[in-house]
Amino acid sequence: MAGSTFGTLFRVTTWGESHGPGVGCVVDGCPPGIPLSTEEVQAELDRRRPGQSRITTQRKEGDEVEIQSGVFEGVTTGTPIGMVVRNTDQRSKDYSEMKELYRPSHADFTYDAKFGVRDYRGGGRASYREAIGRVAAGAVARRLLAERGGVEIVGYVLQVCDLRGTVDSDRVTREDVEANIVRCPDAVAAERMIAAIDDARKSGDSLGGIVEVVARNMPAGLGEPVFDKLTAELAHALMSLPATRGFEVGSGFSSVGMRGSTHNDPFVPKEGRVGTTTNFSGGIQGGISNGENLVLRVAFKPTATIMQEQQTVSTSGEPVTFRAKGRHDPCVLPRAVAAVEAMVALVLADHWMRQAAYGR
Amino acid sequence: MAGSTFGTLFRVTTWGESHGPGVGCVVDGCPPGIPLSTEEVQAELDRRRPGQSRITTQRKEGDEVEIQSGVFEGVTTGTPIGMVVRNTDQRSKDYSEMKELYRPSHADFTYDAKFGVRDYRGGGRASYREAIGRVAAGAVARRLLAERGGVEIVGYVLQVCDLRGTVDSDRVTREDVEANIVRCPDAVAAERMIAAIDDARKSGDSLGGIVEVVARNMPAGLGEPVFDKLTAELAHALMSLPATRGFEVGSGFSSVGMRGSTHNDPFVPKEGRVGTTTNFSGGIQGGISNGENLVLRVAFKPTATIMQEQQTVSTSGEPVTFRAKGRHDPCVLPRAVAAVEAMVALVLADHWMRQAAYGR
Amino acid sequence: MAGSTFGTLFRVTTWGESHGPGVGCVVDGCPPGIPLSTEEVQAELDRRRPGQSRITTQRKEGDEVEIQSGVFEGVTTGTPIGMVVRNTDQRSKDYSEMKELYRPSHADFTYDAKFGVRDYRGGGRASYREAIGRVAAGAVARRLLAERGGVEIVGYVLQVCDLRGTVDSDRVTREDVEANIVRCPDAVAAERMIAAIDDARKSGDSLGGIVEVVARNMPAGLGEPVFDKLTAELAHALMSLPATRGFEVGSGFSSVGMRGSTHNDPFVPKEGRVGTTTNFSGGIQGGISNGENLVLRVAFKPTATIMQEQQTVSTSGEPVTFRAKGRHDPCVLPRAVAAVEAMVALVLADHWMRQAAYGR
Amino acid sequence: MAGSTFGTLFRVTTWGESHGPGVGCVVDGCPPGIPLSTEEVQAELDRRRPGQSRITTQRKEGDEVEIQSGVFEGVTTGTPIGMVVRNTDQRSKDYSEMKELYRPSHADFTYDAKFGVRDYRGGGRASYREAIGRVAAGAVARRLLAERGGVEIVGYVLQVCDLRGTVDSDRVTREDVEANIVRCPDAVAAERMIAAIDDARKSGDSLGGIVEVVARNMPAGLGEPVFDKLTAELAHALMSLPATRGFEVGSGFSSVGMRGSTHNDPFVPKEGRVGTTTNFSGGIQGGISNGENLVLRVAFKPTATIMQEQQTVSTSGEPVTFRAKGRHDPCVLPRAVAAVEAMVALVLADHWMRQAAYGR
Repeated sequence: MAGSTFGTLFRVTTWGESHGPGVGCVVDGCPPGIPLSTEEVQAELDRRRPGQSRITTQRKEGDEVEIQSGVFEGVTTGTPIGMVVRNTDQRSKDYSEMKELYRPSHADFTYDAKFGVRDYRGGGRASYREAIGRVAAGAVARRLLAERGGVEIVGYVLQVCDLRGTVDSDRVTREDVEANIVRCPDAVAAERMIAAIDDARKSGDSLGGIVEVVARNMPAGLGEPVFDKLTAELAHALMSLPATRGFEVGSGFSSVGMRGSTHNDPFVPKEGRVGTTTNFSGGIQGGISNGENLVLRVAFKPTATIMQEQQTVSTSGEPVTFRAKGRHDPCVLPRAVAAVEAMVALVLADHWMRQAAYGR
Repeated sequence: MAGSTFGTLFRVTTWGESHGPGVGCVVDGCPPGIPLSTEEVQAELDRRRPGQSRITTQRKEGDEVEIQSGVFEGVTTGTPIGMVVRNTDQRSKDYSEMKELYRPSHADFTYDAKFGVRDYRGGGRASYREAIGRVAAGAVARRLLAERGGVEIVGYVLQVCDLRGTVDSDRVTREDVEANIVRCPDAVAAERMIAAIDDARKSGDSLGGIVEVVARNMPAGLGEPVFDKLTAELAHALMSLPATRGFEVGSGFSSVGMRGSTHNDPFVPKEGRVGTTTNFSGGIQGGISNGENLVLRVAFKPTATIMQEQQTVSTSGEPVTFRAKGRHDPCVLPRAVAAVEAMVALVLADHWMRQAAYGR
Repeated sequence: MAGSTFGTLFRVTTWGESHGPGVGCVVDGCPPGIPLSTEEVQAELDRRRPGQSRITTQRKEGDEVEIQSGVFEGVTTGTPIGMVVRNTDQRSKDYSEMKELYRPSHADFTYDAKFGVRDYRGGGRASYREAIGRVAAGAVARRLLAERGGVEIVGYVLQVCDLRGTVDSDRVTREDVEANIVRCPDAVAAERMIAAIDDARKSGDSLGGIVEVVARNMPAGLGEPVFDKLTAELAHALMSLPATRGFEVGSGFSSVGMRGSTHNDPFVPKEGRVGTTTNFSGGIQGGISNGENLVLRVAFKPTATIMQEQQTVSTSGEPVTFRAKGRHDPCVLPRAVAAVEAMVALVLADHWMRQAAYGR
Repeated sequence: MAGSTFGTLFRVTTWGESHGPGVGCVVDGCPPGIPLSTEEVQAELDRRRPGQSRITTQRKEGDEVEIQSGVFEGVTTGTPIGMVVRNTDQRSKDYSEMKELYRPSHADFTYDAKFGVRDYRGGGRASYREAIGRVAAGAVARRLLAERGGVEIVGYVLQVCDLRGTVDSDRVTREDVEANIVRCPDAVAAERMIAAIDDARKSGDSLGGIVEVVARNMPAGLGEPVFDKLTAELAHALMSLPATRGFEVGSGFSSVGMRGSTHNDPFVPKEGRVGTTTNFSGGIQGGISNGENLVLRVAFKPTATIMQEQQTVSTSGEPVTFRAKGRHDPCVLPRAVAAVEAMVALVLADHWMRQAAYGR
């Protein structure tokens, strides 16, 4: 569909369906000489993996990655990095129902409308398994950013349904995030979120939420006006993830109710550079990073798969009822953090290279 | 900066600074045989033009467009369409202050950080004049969409500061939008918005708001998973506009508080096609249009230029105070509608062509 | 290296090194509903495979392809088609010599100069094994062209060293080409070419040659002026193959000695369309196909690997002598035909889609 | 037609038809801080300009360039550089004949076949006036290369019809090239070429030829395998020029008759770097520059416009006869040198930036 490649210089192409032989990616354009191990890619994939805790789907998928090219003697060579994860949990089951109807708010109908043909076994290409390629590629991007400038990316669950945590984006660490299974660094809120997800699962329902990401130690100057502003590229990257409904940076939608006299971020001298006292800009001004922390949020709708009976239509357009079976996530947020971070890393790595290209 | 081109097949490249000889665009890839007149391009530009009403900046700029290529005997020829608007209101004035300091929450600092050089006369490339190229290109895209499938795009001001209008996106027309100077089709809310903008101007302050856009008569099947989903491309397009802080489609951020059992859009037979009873999806499922109305919203922060004294730093990093002079928009929303519509049209035209390329 | 993707709409990304786990490609953008089998991809790969005859390298490589995604129930689904060939003939041998010197007219030095790191086991990424991904992708492109318009592509060896065959490009078939191991449809010339290659091998030397390709049943209208003219895209595609030194279309370099009055191709009514009596244009005028047969030629230099002692330098810049070992092609032409055809197919498939995008 | 943009990072988009208001280009991605004047762009355009000598067309076109954006206080700002040349010699004349027939070996028929509509006044988009945008952009690229690494590009006419000059590509200067009106640095051959062009004009006929280009002071490491090898990108760039029929690098087509033992370029220590004793590779190995002089050649067919009566068909497919009128080049070579150099400069500037992006 020619839409499976992302990035200008640091580019990832993903491939694979949920119930085919495997899923994977090709990372093209990674600079040479970057240390990279299978283990560090696997560590990121393990955060996306199903079955990792009692609040995620209980499907067992090992998701073991193999690096197939582009790494030699422990470092990247500048050639394409092919990575693959074999699909293992392809139960032989009866897909005839999914073949013949459109699940509400899934991509079944639109894939059929677009392509006239559809891999009806599970979500096919629209499955969250596709994100495996993104997360693997993001691990490479993250390593590049660490090597070249020390940019540090931390994502976490900020909100589940109407439960919002309180998180200090200037200080939160990955350890804080990994301290509980919902990946919300506010321990009290996390407990409530876990309980809410448990409740939703019991009632066969699903919940949405918000992931927030901070990137610290940012260089000023990343972003290419006017169409490839950092804001625009981040929005593109994140709104390409399944189930996303909204994106905001810095003050986001709350800026709408503020006045310019409050919202403008005053410049001040700061540790030998130009900084700001507030950060309503979320680290981006005029589409270019200003050296302050980059802060953004992504809204995820409640998972489309629920265990309740729903009205829908068959592929021939007849009204039918449908009730999902099997093992599903009542809330995708805890497993989405890894993918959100990966997309941010991919954008920043690409723009780091685009800026370097000026040779300044 | 290699970021001034947007689109895969229907592509626009914009050029120009606020105080240079002019601004313009090249539209490359427009199909041949589309009727196009200078008048219809001009009509769109007039909606973005400064000085159009008492609540916009009072700068007088005629913004007269010239089509320089790609149109012959009233129709597009398939070759690049060059369009230019000469800058006329380039007052010879003293820019020395702007040269020597960074205006808060403008792009002055980040352009310097990125490029090491900056056209300090007005906003340069970061000026909203750049959007002239976008609006002109959008007029071509809009015409293509009208010719090929009848897609109709209507944008309007939904909210200014904390004043939110009530608008029926299924029925609102451009006439409704143009009925008042703030471009909010809710007449009562519009009056309040105008008063609020007047107040803000008098106090030397500025306001933000939300523009909502609906695209009706949409074909199902537009959008290219996984990275060029319609959601992702629209987010990219709209978050590339100046002063945007957030983007959402359909239920957007409000989906976060809903449950799947409520949020899923049931499919039903509808006028001979597959439709949905609700439209929380905003017309996009799995990143592909489903034939329902496309509905999205963009959050604009309050304008950075205010007439109050502000703290900032000089280009050499010394603390200084700054107070803007001249004629500025206390609220960019009324003039932003044309640009928001243009970006939506550009994305849909591009994806109309990408879908046609499959030859189905 | 961000240069491993080719095509605008029908796009291929290749990955893999000669001595890594495998090589492969991702074909993104292939229209849905195209019948595709592993067998037809394998058939093309078998024409590129080493060890297929006594005049090619005697390395034994099965080159068995696996389709990993994008094909379901025998047809393409519109999603990325991942294909892989595992490397099997990775003899554990001593690469220390290749690690420490630069083989003349290979890519050893330039990869080191560019990347500062190099996979010195065999040719790495510069190996002709990389073309496996191209040939596999070309098989898909070829099938698309056959399904959509019946375009037929036939490539063959026209010349080896100073031995040139006589071939009627209007009538030559793949059967003619496959009738002998050198893939020259002129049987008499073919015998001489085979003898010349045998001689070269015996003397430890190597030969170059010319591959000619014809595409018949061409639609008029393919090619996107001014930079993506069909001529330009074909030149790009073919000059990206290893060991190519020249490209020409139609009359090519011989046009230089002709006069316009002879060289111009007169238009005539022809089978209900506009045709030409001569075809010095090689089927392309103004960069766009005119419906006549597309004819082009690619010059390959003599293989860089020879079995004679050569002067070169070590990686530290010291003069050393070098003599290649192992099993190599004394002439790459017979195995290059498949790759040349594949690149032509990729360009035509991409431009078929680009033309379809106009929706005319 | 979405084919009017060239380059990945240093990108040019050209626009304009021969008989519209003007022609021009946008250069996007040029690094900031590069000194650039209108005069140096004009100097390149003057070498392409009609009427510059008795052997070119006698049309009088001033071709005065205006820089419209992207340059401030004498240096590039990193924003898009818009440049325009107004068309002045648009004689009001009778185009009815050209409207109703297809000139042999011109793009009239193929543009109609592709687009179904055609600007029949002169060559429209297929006119050599389009190259004005290329030459202007090339002037910027040339300046970037000079500033950043001192790369020096010299192009010249090597052959006209069967008359071939003898030129030392290691030492030839622009002064040598500009010493005569045919731009062949071999003074004796130049005289003969001029006489041949005079003869062709008198007989209403036309001639082709070869332009050779050398780039000296090349860095090693430019080129992005596998599809964006320097060879491939140069071939693309040059074969996108009107009237080109062939391209070769280094030994080119003559390599076909050589043996590997002769053709391989031995490496030697050379002025503190790794060099080669011969340069059959033309400065490119494995698609990457090796630091030796880059040498390439482009074959131009004889100009399609001749003053003799020719057979052709009308737009409705009827046989008609046609004889061109007006002022035309009997040989495009002398005016093509500037465009060929420009395309080489564009490719090298883009690849200079792509290499810089790795941050090595």
